Amino acid sequence: MNLIEIYYDLRADLEIVEKRLLKEVQSNEKVLQKASAHLLKAGGKRIRPVFVLLAAKFGEYDLERLSRVAVALELIHMATLVHDDVIDDADKRRGSPTVKSAWGNRIAMYTGDFILARALQILADVPDLRSHQILADSIVQMCEGEIEQVRDFYRFDQHLRTYLRRIKRKTALLLSVSCTLGALAANCKETVVQALGKYAYNLGMAFQITDDILDMTATEKKLGKPVGSDLRQGNITLPVLYACRVPETANTLRRLIHRDMTDQEVASAISRIRSVGAIEQSQALADRYLARALKHLDALPNLEWKEKLRQIAIFISKREY
Amino acid sequence: MNLIEIYYDLRADLEIVEKRLLKEVQSNEKVLQKASAHLLKAGGKRIRPVFVLLAAKFGEYDLERLSRVAVALELIHMATLVHDDVIDDADKRRGSPTVKSAWGNRIAMYTGDFILARALQILADVPDLRSHQILADSIVQMCEGEIEQVRDFYRFDQHLRTYLRRIKRKTALLLSVSCTLGALAANCKETVVQALGKYAYNLGMAFQITDDILDMTATEKKLGKPVGSDLRQGNITLPVLYACRVPETANTLRRLIHRDMTDQEVASAISRIRSVGAIEQSQALADRYLARALKHLDALPNLEWKEKLRQIAIFISKREY
Repeated sequence: MNLIEIYYDLRADLEIVEKRLLKEVQSNEKVLQKASAHLLKAGGKRIRPVFVLLAAKFGEYDLERLSRVAVALELIHMATLVHDDVIDDADKRRGSPTVKSAWGNRIAMYTGDFILARALQILADVPDLRSHQILADSIVQMCEGEIEQVRDFYRFDQHLRTYLRRIKRKTALLLSVSCTLGALAANCKETVVQALGKYAYNLGMAFQITDDILDMTATEKKLGKPVGSDLRQGNITLPVLYACRVPETANTLRRLIHRDMTDQEVASAISRIRSVGAIEQSQALADRYLARALKHLDALPNLEWKEKLRQIAIFISKREY
Repeated sequence: MNLIEIYYDLRADLEIVEKRLLKEVQSNEKVLQKASAHLLKAGGKRIRPVFVLLAAKFGEYDLERLSRVAVALELIHMATLVHDDVIDDADKRRGSPTVKSAWGNRIAMYTGDFILARALQILADVPDLRSHQILADSIVQMCEGEIEQVRDFYRFDQHLRTYLRRIKRKTALLLSVSCTLGALAANCKETVVQALGKYAYNLGMAFQITDDILDMTATEKKLGKPVGSDLRQGNITLPVLYACRVPETANTLRRLIHRDMTDQEVASAISRIRSVGAIEQSQALADRYLARALKHLDALPNLEWKEKLRQIAIFISKREY
């Protein structure tokens, strides 16, 4: 089962979302439009739009209203990616040059600002106050998360909960908001809104842990960026934290992981992390979050769409790229 | 008449706004809070909060509701300043080090994102859809304006309307939005909302032209940053455009204005611009906008607050810093 099969029943609606995405980043300022279109065309799993649409299947499904929310959330996600690339000094994302590397930091900063502003403009017509509050709260937390990420670079002694809060803010929150806002836009029952939000939150945690594992276990071709990118930028992820519980390994990793790591050092660090079982431990935690995500689906009525959510959860947690 | 006198009757309410500003940028992420507080404490004229409050005097004045709007708009202004400083590579603003120079570009980018997110969070409780739409439209235009500014650096042949559109987006829009949102939050009559918005728009244009003049005529001490900062970064402002209407002067200025200008070149460029009467011409255009701003006040009822708006307009256009 791959994403194309899972998304099959939504393909017509997702095409409408996709067209609208491109339409919404049009601007007379050509560089903004080019940079934004470049980002959109680099692709991505479009999980946020899919969550908006699937969540709304449990209520009154109105595509015009939902595509607005879906487009806005995907744009917010893209805005964070552009600013991330400035911070991470990343040259590639999904195999394409980043906006930062193609146009420079300044244009990247304003492209992010512009895309976020467009998202706000699209959402400004949504009359539901609660949706605005949830989203604004999340954006604040996401910004705080970005700062934490910078602050926590090369901090080998950070607590597990520091890592978990960071990935919540980096990934799980906006996924959770996508389900929640989709459900609210479809006037779902409160229990359904809650269950969908928690499903997506837990799945988001599993998703990011899987991402952090793949950074060490996948190939550059599958990742679309160099293996060990997290290590190279000092981003201390779950496998590193688990590996550092063995004091000797911690010392070795502290020595290997620094600014301007050589490819050899990256390879040695990854090999050490793998050898102490840290990947399996990380996978076990991802699996726990996955199980929690699936459990929250129990609260939903038995529609065919519930099975889709289950499939997406399993796909995302078991993916190899 | 200075600003303290003009603001006198609002001082209690402005103090509440000021306290709320500091409260709203609190964060567990200490670097965000410090950078934000640093920005707030550098001061500024707080014209946006003042406009929100004064506009609301023409309707139902509810300080709790208004201070929310006032704080949000000032925060949005501050967010644009932080990102501006990254783009402009500026080391000083209002005599203090910029966030960019004190903490670096990355922290500056996220401080701007964080402050904007806080503003959105504060506004998320405002139930008036139209306010959200007006603001979101303006933020999109402001972002486009920032890109235009980068694009138009060193463009000596740009049309006057290019300059005017740029300063509209840079300054006039958010001032206009401040009056408009203040008036809407106070349920003012539509004619009053319109008149206040147009007053602030025209005043904003006069304000920015005055700013661009002062960059060449004031002292470093009064400006809080080096004289000729616009020239040094290639920002082609109104006095330069007027001066370039004389072909010989245009040639001289093209030669003098370039990256890494010496202090001597800055002084020569300014002296040349002044000698051909470009400052007076610019002042005349600022005066025309000021006159239009004052004319829109005619549509307002004769409250004491109307006189305040008149005083602010004159103060802003005639100020020397």
